[in-house]
Amino acid sequence: MTKVPAYATRGPTEPLSPFTIERRDPRPDDVVIDVLYCGICHSDIHQARDEWNNSSYPMVPGHEIVGRVVEVGRDVTRLRPGDKVGVGCFVDSCLECGPCKRDLEQFCEEGAAFTYNGTEMDRKTPTFGGYSTRIVVRDHFVLRVPESLDPAGAAPLLCAGITTFSPLSAAKTKRGDRVAVVGLGGLGHMAVKIASSMGAEVTVLSTSRAKEADARRLGATAFELTREEGAFQRLAGRFDLVIDSVSAPHDYNAYLRTLRPLGTMVLLGIPPAPIPLDATALILGNRRLVGSNIGGVAETQAMLDYCGEHGIVSDVEVIPAQEINAAYERVLRGDVRYRFVVDVSSLAK
Amino acid sequence: MTKVPAYATRGPTEPLSPFTIERRDPRPDDVVIDVLYCGICHSDIHQARDEWNNSSYPMVPGHEIVGRVVEVGRDVTRLRPGDKVGVGCFVDSCLECGPCKRDLEQFCEEGAAFTYNGTEMDRKTPTFGGYSTRIVVRDHFVLRVPESLDPAGAAPLLCAGITTFSPLSAAKTKRGDRVAVVGLGGLGHMAVKIASSMGAEVTVLSTSRAKEADARRLGATAFELTREEGAFQRLAGRFDLVIDSVSAPHDYNAYLRTLRPLGTMVLLGIPPAPIPLDATALILGNRRLVGSNIGGVAETQAMLDYCGEHGIVSDVEVIPAQEINAAYERVLRGDVRYRFVVDVSSLAK
Repeated sequence: MTKVPAYATRGPTEPLSPFTIERRDPRPDDVVIDVLYCGICHSDIHQARDEWNNSSYPMVPGHEIVGRVVEVGRDVTRLRPGDKVGVGCFVDSCLECGPCKRDLEQFCEEGAAFTYNGTEMDRKTPTFGGYSTRIVVRDHFVLRVPESLDPAGAAPLLCAGITTFSPLSAAKTKRGDRVAVVGLGGLGHMAVKIASSMGAEVTVLSTSRAKEADARRLGATAFELTREEGAFQRLAGRFDLVIDSVSAPHDYNAYLRTLRPLGTMVLLGIPPAPIPLDATALILGNRRLVGSNIGGVAETQAMLDYCGEHGIVSDVEVIPAQEINAAYERVLRGDVRYRFVVDVSSLAK
Repeated sequence: MTKVPAYATRGPTEPLSPFTIERRDPRPDDVVIDVLYCGICHSDIHQARDEWNNSSYPMVPGHEIVGRVVEVGRDVTRLRPGDKVGVGCFVDSCLECGPCKRDLEQFCEEGAAFTYNGTEMDRKTPTFGGYSTRIVVRDHFVLRVPESLDPAGAAPLLCAGITTFSPLSAAKTKRGDRVAVVGLGGLGHMAVKIASSMGAEVTVLSTSRAKEADARRLGATAFELTREEGAFQRLAGRFDLVIDSVSAPHDYNAYLRTLRPLGTMVLLGIPPAPIPLDATALILGNRRLVGSNIGGVAETQAMLDYCGEHGIVSDVEVIPAQEINAAYERVLRGDVRYRFVVDVSSLAK
């Protein structure tokens, strides 16, 4: 076992503070990674504060991890020390059930081992995330990060990137498709970058006019202020695909009606309470409402390779670990463009 | 113009009664059809009683029509007198917009001409449905009905048949797929027949134990009483496809959670009020909730050909027109197995 410095919270109302965790000695199929950067995902805050009623403490959040391999187990041939790698939302799964065999490890029937606030597959050992200087992960779950990508900007690809790439890829988004992105935050800004790189005509739907300039800079060709009178009537039947990244309460039916017949709306955000769904919003036009939850290992690798080819990273604000608590507050105020990333070298100081 | 006998309602609280309508002389692309049978769809009742707030009177309902061609316009080469044909939910559309060109005439951007309670594409001439002895329909919208099929049993295929065939076909339902059918009424019983003919393992989910024997006779291999304690826990993650034919209020989230990852639930019914949707029911498992509204002309023909090959018709109770009002009451009580069909020859008496 190796003791490594980390940042942890001890309870739902506690701030994050320095903490020491132990990382296991590498098994034959393990990869030992020195963490360079770790993104701050909104779900880190939800879980740190037990807002999903499933938290265990102490908790070391962080599932947008980029680092360098420092050691590999004797059976690992795919990676070697020095490789630039990433770790996303899960670090193990059974690899034998139906979903695992279909490259959907996130839906492993035994329950994937999530990167933090979970347990290893022994269902006893707690997992600790990327707000720490080192992590040891089973080979299969370690992603290659293209050398060309800035490591800080690449960190959010491991969650925000795959979360938006997966539904855009599932919809076979191509040149000329009309894609709406609802909400321009951590997820939304990645959706705009990736959709526009695929050739789509991207419209950002937002409640804040202040987002318009950024929307266009990120690749959107249109912007609609949804609280403007008549906005939804004007947009009726327009889009092939709506990527809804909003977790605040909002009217699904209004957005569904902006889809053309057979169009798809993808939910990425989890509002605090169920939202009334009018069946006619789906039936009149054979429209589709689908959920999307990160992506499997193979698809995450495909996303990283794609981002490498297209030079796509997240827009980030890099902070030392000592500023995590302040950053959480700014995330809650929407005051970040568009992702905080912890410079993990600050933890070793 | 030709005067023909029909059954009509003059207002939302009026019974249906004998009425005379005029059918146009055939245009070059028209087909004149003597109606043999017309099914009673639940939507006939909704519209006769103005429950969708879009009714105009007098109204001659009926969009599940089987008849024989008696005359064709000079440009019609596809059909000839004596042919057994069908007419479904719409009788015209622009044929030039995006949806029409994609064989989705029901979503014509100009608005399809629905078979009754609508207008022809001139947006003035009212349309009258199949509770009448004759109908004149533009060639493109007339379907061929296989000679092998009983004409009374085939009538409901024009709405209930295509409504259930379309989502089963879109899902590429195949041998061994696990399909749930929610509700065993006019739509549900067709869904069971068609899904089982495709080789699916069909489970009927119902609130009434009395439906079990019929479910199995129609082709289901399993039956679950959804009001039984623990039913939904037992069914979690089981199905590839859920066909939801219910228009009474029910909890979408419970049914969504019976889907495996990436499974699809299809809404066919329109409950009286929106139903709260929990985003996690879609996101945890990348599940899909889609609406499906009848089908285009090409798909309706494919459905009829498929039913001809597989000997599939609706289970019907044939009545004379004079019993339509009593039949409406029985439909509302769920007292029909599974579709009333009007013997239109009774109108000529």
